[in-house]
Amino acid sequence: MNLEDIRKRYHQVRQHSLALVEPLETEDFCLQSMPEASPVKWHLAHTTWFFETFVLRPFADRYQPFHQQFEQLFNSYYNSVGQPFPRPRRHLQSRPTVGVVLRYREVVDMAMEAFLAKGANDEALSRIELGTHHEQQHQELLLTDLQHAWWFNPMRPDTPMVQDNPSVTRELGWIAVAGGLHAFGHSGSGFAFDNEGPAHQHWLEDFEVADRLISNGEYMAFMEDGGYRQPLLWLSDGWDAVRQHGWNAPLYWYQKDGIWWQWSLTGDRPVDPARPVTHVSYYEADAFARWAGARLPTEFEWEQAARQMRGTGDKPGPDTGDFFGQAWQWTASPYVPYPGFQPSADAIGEYNGKFMCDQWVLRGSSLLTPPDHTRITYRNFFQAAARWQRTGIRLARGGQPQIKDIS
Amino acid sequence: MNLEDIRKRYHQVRQHSLALVEPLETEDFCLQSMPEASPVKWHLAHTTWFFETFVLRPFADRYQPFHQQFEQLFNSYYNSVGQPFPRPRRHLQSRPTVGVVLRYREVVDMAMEAFLAKGANDEALSRIELGTHHEQQHQELLLTDLQHAWWFNPMRPDTPMVQDNPSVTRELGWIAVAGGLHAFGHSGSGFAFDNEGPAHQHWLEDFEVADRLISNGEYMAFMEDGGYRQPLLWLSDGWDAVRQHGWNAPLYWYQKDGIWWQWSLTGDRPVDPARPVTHVSYYEADAFARWAGARLPTEFEWEQAARQMRGTGDKPGPDTGDFFGQAWQWTASPYVPYPGFQPSADAIGEYNGKFMCDQWVLRGSSLLTPPDHTRITYRNFFQAAARWQRTGIRLARGGQPQIKDIS
Amino acid sequence: MNLEDIRKRYHQVRQHSLALVEPLETEDFCLQSMPEASPVKWHLAHTTWFFETFVLRPFADRYQPFHQQFEQLFNSYYNSVGQPFPRPRRHLQSRPTVGVVLRYREVVDMAMEAFLAKGANDEALSRIELGTHHEQQHQELLLTDLQHAWWFNPMRPDTPMVQDNPSVTRELGWIAVAGGLHAFGHSGSGFAFDNEGPAHQHWLEDFEVADRLISNGEYMAFMEDGGYRQPLLWLSDGWDAVRQHGWNAPLYWYQKDGIWWQWSLTGDRPVDPARPVTHVSYYEADAFARWAGARLPTEFEWEQAARQMRGTGDKPGPDTGDFFGQAWQWTASPYVPYPGFQPSADAIGEYNGKFMCDQWVLRGSSLLTPPDHTRITYRNFFQAAARWQRTGIRLARGGQPQIKDIS
Amino acid sequence: MNLEDIRKRYHQVRQHSLALVEPLETEDFCLQSMPEASPVKWHLAHTTWFFETFVLRPFADRYQPFHQQFEQLFNSYYNSVGQPFPRPRRHLQSRPTVGVVLRYREVVDMAMEAFLAKGANDEALSRIELGTHHEQQHQELLLTDLQHAWWFNPMRPDTPMVQDNPSVTRELGWIAVAGGLHAFGHSGSGFAFDNEGPAHQHWLEDFEVADRLISNGEYMAFMEDGGYRQPLLWLSDGWDAVRQHGWNAPLYWYQKDGIWWQWSLTGDRPVDPARPVTHVSYYEADAFARWAGARLPTEFEWEQAARQMRGTGDKPGPDTGDFFGQAWQWTASPYVPYPGFQPSADAIGEYNGKFMCDQWVLRGSSLLTPPDHTRITYRNFFQAAARWQRTGIRLARGGQPQIKDIS
Repeated sequence: MNLEDIRKRYHQVRQHSLALVEPLETEDFCLQSMPEASPVKWHLAHTTWFFETFVLRPFADRYQPFHQQFEQLFNSYYNSVGQPFPRPRRHLQSRPTVGVVLRYREVVDMAMEAFLAKGANDEALSRIELGTHHEQQHQELLLTDLQHAWWFNPMRPDTPMVQDNPSVTRELGWIAVAGGLHAFGHSGSGFAFDNEGPAHQHWLEDFEVADRLISNGEYMAFMEDGGYRQPLLWLSDGWDAVRQHGWNAPLYWYQKDGIWWQWSLTGDRPVDPARPVTHVSYYEADAFARWAGARLPTEFEWEQAARQMRGTGDKPGPDTGDFFGQAWQWTASPYVPYPGFQPSADAIGEYNGKFMCDQWVLRGSSLLTPPDHTRITYRNFFQAAARWQRTGIRLARGGQPQIKDIS
Repeated sequence: MNLEDIRKRYHQVRQHSLALVEPLETEDFCLQSMPEASPVKWHLAHTTWFFETFVLRPFADRYQPFHQQFEQLFNSYYNSVGQPFPRPRRHLQSRPTVGVVLRYREVVDMAMEAFLAKGANDEALSRIELGTHHEQQHQELLLTDLQHAWWFNPMRPDTPMVQDNPSVTRELGWIAVAGGLHAFGHSGSGFAFDNEGPAHQHWLEDFEVADRLISNGEYMAFMEDGGYRQPLLWLSDGWDAVRQHGWNAPLYWYQKDGIWWQWSLTGDRPVDPARPVTHVSYYEADAFARWAGARLPTEFEWEQAARQMRGTGDKPGPDTGDFFGQAWQWTASPYVPYPGFQPSADAIGEYNGKFMCDQWVLRGSSLLTPPDHTRITYRNFFQAAARWQRTGIRLARGGQPQIKDIS
Repeated sequence: MNLEDIRKRYHQVRQHSLALVEPLETEDFCLQSMPEASPVKWHLAHTTWFFETFVLRPFADRYQPFHQQFEQLFNSYYNSVGQPFPRPRRHLQSRPTVGVVLRYREVVDMAMEAFLAKGANDEALSRIELGTHHEQQHQELLLTDLQHAWWFNPMRPDTPMVQDNPSVTRELGWIAVAGGLHAFGHSGSGFAFDNEGPAHQHWLEDFEVADRLISNGEYMAFMEDGGYRQPLLWLSDGWDAVRQHGWNAPLYWYQKDGIWWQWSLTGDRPVDPARPVTHVSYYEADAFARWAGARLPTEFEWEQAARQMRGTGDKPGPDTGDFFGQAWQWTASPYVPYPGFQPSADAIGEYNGKFMCDQWVLRGSSLLTPPDHTRITYRNFFQAAARWQRTGIRLARGGQPQIKDIS
Repeated sequence: MNLEDIRKRYHQVRQHSLALVEPLETEDFCLQSMPEASPVKWHLAHTTWFFETFVLRPFADRYQPFHQQFEQLFNSYYNSVGQPFPRPRRHLQSRPTVGVVLRYREVVDMAMEAFLAKGANDEALSRIELGTHHEQQHQELLLTDLQHAWWFNPMRPDTPMVQDNPSVTRELGWIAVAGGLHAFGHSGSGFAFDNEGPAHQHWLEDFEVADRLISNGEYMAFMEDGGYRQPLLWLSDGWDAVRQHGWNAPLYWYQKDGIWWQWSLTGDRPVDPARPVTHVSYYEADAFARWAGARLPTEFEWEQAARQMRGTGDKPGPDTGDFFGQAWQWTASPYVPYPGFQPSADAIGEYNGKFMCDQWVLRGSSLLTPPDHTRITYRNFFQAAARWQRTGIRLARGGQPQIKDIS
C-alpha cells in the first residue's frame, strides 16, 4: 500500500471503532467477564497504544506520549515494551475514563495525521498498515467480549446491535476437491499477518468439504440424540469440559417456555433451525462431526476448497458462499508455525508467534468481522474450550491416503 | 424514635450517600476488586432496595416496584427474598446505569416521603430506622470497597477524598479497669442492631487497656524486628496467610525511594509514624500484640473500658479518646451470638445472625464511619484475614483469673 | 504423677497404639485422603518423634537420634524444631517403611526405658506425661483418618474394627442446670492440656441440656423435612458448604436398595435410628438444632451440666450418660484461650495455642477415644466443616439473660 | 505374529514387569504424587485388567473374573467399559494389597496360558499382542511415576535402580536430510499402535537435524545466560509456566555445595555435562532451541532423518545413534491424527484417538523404554508442561520453503 492508501485506511478503521461503540452507555465500556476478555474501553485504548508505541514513539519527531502510565496500562502482552498491567484486572481501570480514552484517540489520530503528512519510511508505513489490521481484530473482539459480559446480566439489552444475515434453508451438499501437492499460505505484495506465511507446499489427498455450515437445526438433532451425554463422541479433554461446565447446548442458548432461545448481539429470539450454529467450542465441533460420521477439515483442506471456489487471489468472492461472513470455522489443525516461519526481530515479533501452542486454527470470518478484514489465508486461533467467539462448524470427509505401503 | 425523627434521619442519611459519591466519575461507580467488595453503584442501589423490599412493598398501598428485576439484582444475601444475583459478578451490572440507579433512589425517596406523610405503623417505622443504619454501614463499605479497587490501578487518585485526623504523638499509657460481674450489650429504647443484645452479665477480671491505638511507628518497629518472619509470633492460620500472600507490611503500604509510603482515601504520603496503624488483619494485630508482650482485649473488656471512660450511656463522648473515629479495633472475641440472642422471624432475621461463624468482633469506629453511627455496644465483624477495612490495634494486658482451684 | 506411674502409663499407651494397628495390612498404613489427615504410619512415627524430640534429645545423656531425617519427616507443625515435611505429602513417605517405623518405636521405647530407669527431673516427667496424652490423641486420629481414607475405596473392609455401643431407645429428656457465677477449666494436680486452663469464673443463666445425644432417627426426620434444602436453617458459611459439597446426609451414609446405609469402623449396616447420629459438621449440628427449636450448648454450659451429673472431680462417671464415649459434641463456643492463658515458652508452647482461631470446641469423647483420655474439662476442637471425626449433637435450650437493662 | 510368538512375547513381557519391581518395598508400590501418575501397584493391576477385560472376558470360555470390583478399580479411562475409579485417588486403593495384585497377575496369566493352549482367533491374538505393547508402555510409566513420587521424600533411594548409558563427549554435528514428497507412518504387517498410521505422504523441504541430543553442559550454558529469565525466548504459555512453577532448571536438579546435582533412578550425582539433558518440558526444549538459534524438528523431519540413518525398515539400528535409548525427543508437532486415521470401533478405539488434543509428539525412546518397544514410527505424546518423563532435546534447522509465490 502507498502512503495515501494507508492514510485513508487508517482514518476509515479508526472511525469504524467509534461507530461500533456509539450505542453504548459509559458503564458498558468497563465490563470484563473473564481474564480472556477485555473491556471495550481497553480495546479502544490498546489499539491507540499500538500506534503510539510502534509508530509515533520510534518514528515521529518530538512526539510526547499522551500519558506516561498508558505504556503499561494498555500494553497487552509485549514483554519487550515492559511489564503489562495484569490482564484479569483490566476492569479495575476506572481511570482513565471513557472520555479521556476518547481524547487519547483524538490526540494520537492528530499526531498520526501530522506524521503521515510529512511522509514516512517503509517500516513506519508497514507498521501503520499492521496497526489498522490489528485494530480490526479488536473491533471483532470488543463485540464478542461485550456480548459475553452482558450475558451474565439479566438486564442485558435485547435489541440487536448487529444485523444478522438472512436465514437460508438448503440441503447440505459436498464439494469435491482434488488432492495433490498444493501451495498454501500468503504470498505476494498484499497485506497479511506474519503467521500466514511463508507460502509453502503441502500434500493433500482428494477430499470433500460441506458446501454450507452446520445449522442450528442439525445441531439440535445432535443434542436430542444425547450428543452431550455420550463420552465416546468426545475428545478426552472435551468430555472433561462437558462435565466440568455442565454444557448441554451452545453458549447463549437458554430454555424458556419449553423451547430453546438464543441471545446475542443480533437480538433475542427462539433458535432458528435454518441459521448456522454458532458459539460452539472446538470440542463440540469435533464431537458433532464424529456424531455426523464426518470430520472437521484441516486448515489446508479448508484453504484449498476456498481457493477452488474463488479462483485465483486471496480475497473471498461471491462464490465462496458461507466460507466467510457467518461464523469462524474450527479446523482440525493445531495452530503451529508454517515451515520456515520467523517472527520479526523487534517487539512486533511478539504479535503472533508466541501463541503457537495448544490453540486451534479457525478459518473464514464471522458476521462480526470487518468486511475488508478477510483473506483466504487468514489464520484465526483460539483454545479448544473457547465459546465466546462466533464460531461454527463446517464438515469434511474423505482424504484417505492412497499409499498402503512405504518402500 | 418518633415518625418525625425517623423522617429527618431518613432524609439526612439518604442525602449523605449522594454527597459521598459526588466526586466520582461514572466509571468509578462500577468497580469490584474481589467477591467480598461491591461496586459503589450497587451499594447505592442495594440500600434503596432495602427500603423498597422491606418497607414499601409490604406496607405502602399500591406501591409499584421500580423495576421487576431489581428485586434479584440488588438483593445481597436474603434467601427469603429469592435467589440473589451472584455476588462476584456485581461488576457486570453495567445496566442499570448510574443514572438509572440515581433515578431509582429518587423514586423510592418520593414513595417513602408519601408513605411517611400518611403515618406508618411501628413495624414499618422500625424497619425504616433499621434501613437508615443499614445505609450508614454501606456508606463506610462503599468507601473501603472503592479504595480497594482503586489500589490496583496505578492511576488511582492521589488527592484526599476524606480528611484525616490530626497526627498526635503521645506515650502509650494504660487504663486500669476493675473486674467483676458487669452487664454488657445494648439495652433501653435507642436503636441498636439485633446482634448488640440481649444485654447480659459477664464476669471480668481486673485488666488494663491501652489509652491509644498502636501507631505506624510502633508497627514499623515490629516489621524491622522481623515480625513478618517469625512463625512463633503468629497463629497457625495467620502464618499461612503471611506466606501465601507475601505480606510484609499493612495493606496500602508500598516502598518508594527507600521509604514506606501509604496510599488511602486520605491521600498519598510517606507513612506518618505518629498516626495509628490501619489496614491490618486480625492475624497481624494478634502477632503484633504477642510481639509487644501484650494481647488484644476481648470485646467485653473493650466495652467495659469504653463505658468507664464515658460514664453512663451508650454513646461515645469526648473522653473516649481514639476508641472511636480512627480505626476499628480487632478484639480477641469471635463473633458469636450473645446469650439468648434470637434473630427476628421475618426476612430481616437474616441481617446478622447467619454470619456468626469464623469472624471476629471489631469495636469502636473508624475515620470513615458516619459520626452518628457509633455506639459503645456496636459489634462490627470481619474475617481474620480481612485488611481492606480501616482496622487498627488496641492492646490489653492483665486479666489473669484469681481463682486457682475449683471446689 | 510419680515416675513409676508415668512409666506404667508410658508402656500401656505405647502398647495400645500397636494393638490398634494390629489388624492392618502394610498398605493400609500409608493412606492419606486429604491434607488434614495423616497416614497411620506417620501417626506411629510422629508420636515416637515427640518423645525423641522433647525428652530424649534434650534430657537423655548421649542419646543418638535414630535417623537424622526423622526430625523433619515426623515433625507435625513445630516451627521451633525446624521446617516440617509438607503435610499434604505425608503419603509420599514410602520410606521409612512400616517395618523401620516399628523398629524406630522399639529403639525409642528402649531409650525411654533406660532414661526412666535412671530417674528423671520434673520437666522431663511432665513432658513424658504430656507425650502419652499426645499419643492417645493420635490413637483416635489414626482411626478416623484411616476410616476416611478407606471410604473412597469400594474395597473398604466391611468387618468391624471397633465394637459399637449398644443401641438404646429412649425419649429425649431435659436436664435443668442452675446458672450463677461458676468456675470452669482445669485446676488441681492431675494432668490436663494447657488449653484447659487457667481455671476461671464465668457467668451462666439457668438453662437446660438434653439428657442424650440426637439419634439417627431424629436426624433422618430433619433430612426428610428438607433440612438440607432450607437456607434459613443454616449459617451462611454452612449453606455455602451444603451447596459446594452437595451434602444431603452425614458423612459415611449412602443409599442402597432404597434405604440409608452407614459404613464405619464399626461395620457396614442399615442406619440404626436408635443410635446417635455421628459424622456431622458443626454446620449440620447447628442447623439441626435450629430446626428442632433448640440450640447447641456453649462449652461452659456443657461443662457445668457434666459437672452437675458427676458430682465433684473432673473425671466422668457412671451418671454422665452419653456425655462421654459415644460422639464428640459440637458446642456453640469458638475455640479461644481462656482468660490468662499462656502457652509454655518452649517448643511445646506450639501444642495448642496457635490453633485458637476459627475452630469450634467439642466436648465429651467418642467411641474411639481411649477410655482414660477423657476429662470434664477436655477441649477438643475442629473446623466447622469437619465431618471425619466421630462428632454428634447434644441440644440445649433456655439461658435467656435475666437483666433487661444496664444501669 | 503367530500364536506361538505371541505366547512367548506374553510371557517375556509379563515377567519383565515383575523383574522391574523386584527391588521395591511394599510401601513403594502405593505412591501417587499427582493425578497424572499412578502407583506401581496400579500399573501392575491395570495391565492385567487389560488382558482380563479385552481378551479373557470376551473370548475365553467360562472365564470367571478374579474379582467383581476390579473392572472398575483398574479401568484407566475406557468409558465404554464403565465408570473408572477416580484417577487422582488411585493411591487410596490400599486394598487389594500388593500380594493380592500379584496373585491376580498369576491367575490371569494361568487363564491366558490355558486360553492360548486351546488356540485363539485373530481378533484375540491381535488384542493380546496389543496388550503386551500396552504393558511395555506401563513398564516405562511405572518407573517414571515412581521416580516422581520418590522425589518428594528426602529419604528417596540414592542407589541406581537403572543402569545409565555411558557418558560421551562429542561436538554437535548436523545431518543433512533431503526434502521431497516422502511417505510417513507405519505400514506393513508388523505391530504398531493405531496412531502410527495410516501411512501417508507429506512434503518436506531440505533440512538438517542434530546428530546428537543436547547435553547437560549445553543446557547449563542456557541457564547461565539467563534463559529462564528472558520472556522473549519462550512461548507465552511457557513463560507463564516458568513463573507459576518457579522453574530454573530441569526437574530433579538441585543445588548442593554450590553445584548442581541430579537425582534419578540412575543414581544421585553431580550433573554430568557430557550426558544428555533430560526431564525438560516442551516449553524448555522450545526455548532452548530458540536461544540456540535453531528449532525443534517436526515429527516428520525426525522420522525422515531416522529412516535415512537406518536404511529401510522401521526398527532402529546401530546407525541411529541416540535417536533411541536415551531420552524421548520433543518435536514441534502437535499430536493429531494422521490423514484418514480411524480408531477401531470397539472399546480399544479409546486407546489413543481421544487424546489427540493439546499434546505434543515425542519421538525415539528413552533409557527406560523396553528395548523391543521402539519403532521409527512410534508416536509418544505428552502435554507441553510435562517434565516427569525422561524427555530431552534434539535440534533441527533449515527447512525454509523454496516457493515464494503461489500462482
